[in-house]
Amino acid sequence: MRIAVDAMGGDKAPQEIVKGSVLAAQLVSDAEIILVGDENKIKHELTLIRTTPKNISIHHAPQIVGMDDPATHSIRQKINSSITRSVELLAKGEANALVSAGHTGATVAAATLHLRTLKGVRRPGIAISLPTRYGMCMIIDAGANISCKPLHLYQYGVMASTVCKYLMNIENPTVGLLNIGEEDAKGNDLVRETFSLLANSPLNFVGNVESREIFDGKAHVVVCEGFVGNVILKFAEGISKSLLMTIKTEAMNSFWTKLGMFLCKPIFQSLKAKMDFAEYGGVPLLGVNGICIICHGRSDARAIQNAIKAAVKLAKTKVNEHIISELEKSGKLTAEVA
Amino acid sequence: MRIAVDAMGGDKAPQEIVKGSVLAAQLVSDAEIILVGDENKIKHELTLIRTTPKNISIHHAPQIVGMDDPATHSIRQKINSSITRSVELLAKGEANALVSAGHTGATVAAATLHLRTLKGVRRPGIAISLPTRYGMCMIIDAGANISCKPLHLYQYGVMASTVCKYLMNIENPTVGLLNIGEEDAKGNDLVRETFSLLANSPLNFVGNVESREIFDGKAHVVVCEGFVGNVILKFAEGISKSLLMTIKTEAMNSFWTKLGMFLCKPIFQSLKAKMDFAEYGGVPLLGVNGICIICHGRSDARAIQNAIKAAVKLAKTKVNEHIISELEKSGKLTAEVA
Repeated sequence: MRIAVDAMGGDKAPQEIVKGSVLAAQLVSDAEIILVGDENKIKHELTLIRTTPKNISIHHAPQIVGMDDPATHSIRQKINSSITRSVELLAKGEANALVSAGHTGATVAAATLHLRTLKGVRRPGIAISLPTRYGMCMIIDAGANISCKPLHLYQYGVMASTVCKYLMNIENPTVGLLNIGEEDAKGNDLVRETFSLLANSPLNFVGNVESREIFDGKAHVVVCEGFVGNVILKFAEGISKSLLMTIKTEAMNSFWTKLGMFLCKPIFQSLKAKMDFAEYGGVPLLGVNGICIICHGRSDARAIQNAIKAAVKLAKTKVNEHIISELEKSGKLTAEVA
Repeated sequence: MRIAVDAMGGDKAPQEIVKGSVLAAQLVSDAEIILVGDENKIKHELTLIRTTPKNISIHHAPQIVGMDDPATHSIRQKINSSITRSVELLAKGEANALVSAGHTGATVAAATLHLRTLKGVRRPGIAISLPTRYGMCMIIDAGANISCKPLHLYQYGVMASTVCKYLMNIENPTVGLLNIGEEDAKGNDLVRETFSLLANSPLNFVGNVESREIFDGKAHVVVCEGFVGNVILKFAEGISKSLLMTIKTEAMNSFWTKLGMFLCKPIFQSLKAKMDFAEYGGVPLLGVNGICIICHGRSDARAIQNAIKAAVKLAKTKVNEHIISELEKSGKLTAEVA
């Protein structure tokens, strides 16, 4: 199992990326980790850590895609960037999966360009998992595709449902459509057309889901277009952080609340962990012909380590083969709409 | 100052609506409250309360728009509904403002149909206020308009900015555009075109705002299309509730955390109040030729009371006159784009 890690991507690259990769290499001994990026810089980081596990190697890529670079353009111009080279390793079969905390748009563009989409898939989608009161809810797409058509959303439902089934062992995952009301006729043209596609599919469709219902566990998978999904992802991050900070600040107002907060520390630690993207490490880009794990730009060593573990798990589950087969089951529908 | 209150709208109507109206009538003695709805039912509720302030009257409207009724259709069919009749009182000048916890879509449709939009305004928008670490952030639109054009979003910026200026006394309110990245070129066609409108306007435009930044107080006003705004509104409700419930549940695990929670009670009470829609009562529908306050379907007496107070305040500030004048200042722009 070979994992290509974009060593130059992310706010804390290459330091934390290299550190996380070394941790993962020590933990997952049957994985070979290929650090893709500037050889000298990576070697320097490895020297600082003072240990280079045998299952770590370096693949030199001198260029870096900056966070401000336009996605598609940078992929075409910077053909020797760590992102493009990582994707190429996957495309050539020299790696089984990739992990990147770099420019999300560039990673999606490079993956779509070099790996192509899976048979039948129109657009790849990013699947994020939000903790609910009853487990997790997978929301797709979180920003890969902001020009969605009903068929794209339908296929997101199939792909995420497949991940829930084969990776999380949920027998018949429920799929909902993010909408602004429960009634069938609610929403804009995109969601109304998607509603009828989902309702007439073999998926376990539970209808429209309002955003407040995500946390009630109304569906295992909630489908939405990338702009809305991205807003949700970042809003969840912002509001959780803001709420916890407000609680902490208000607790400082009196001795008794300060003491109360001290006693409640374990709760807040567990809550923080639940909401911490570093715990999840990364999220899969579903629909491309390869395993791609996209990490938060702020990823630290622990996040990278968890992302590599997730990549190994996804690759071992052969999730893409299952996605193709599930999409084929609804092949007639796909052809009809296309 | 006459306020028409839709006595039949909302999950707890007419009971809580009538109760809230009586409370408001007692508090705001210079307001006359007209309860619009089934006369017998309203009279029955007033009898139960055992007090009918002199500044409360009833306007009979025998029909009710149900929560499952399609918005536009029900407005055309149920011409004697409490929503339509309330709006008509405003249109005829027999009331200065209206408050409704009924079907939001129907209220927006009735208001747009009977009151028409303010001079120059293309589409009305619902403005919600979210508590941030530094005060409030007004997000517009929260669901009145799900077929937005750049000009609509631009006008939302002008309208909400005017409310901040004249109602909240914020001198030069900052206006941001909700987007999925900070860079100018990010997002779909709608936001990119809106970006250039806002950037070339007299507004205090601060550029793109990512949803996580709402809580950092990056802008006083954040503009977005109604589908996204509605998702945000309900998501905020869902995630806050879910977080507080998780904290409470986890606190039950040990004696010490239980004690800690007991000591922290004042924090959670203040937090709950901050996030409680009943505190705010209702949100304004901006851009129609009249003051309309839309309340949450679950509104209780306290929410209605606060909504009536908000309606009185908005009407007294003559916010609509200010909106027209602010829009006229950017008249050239409006004409160019139209």
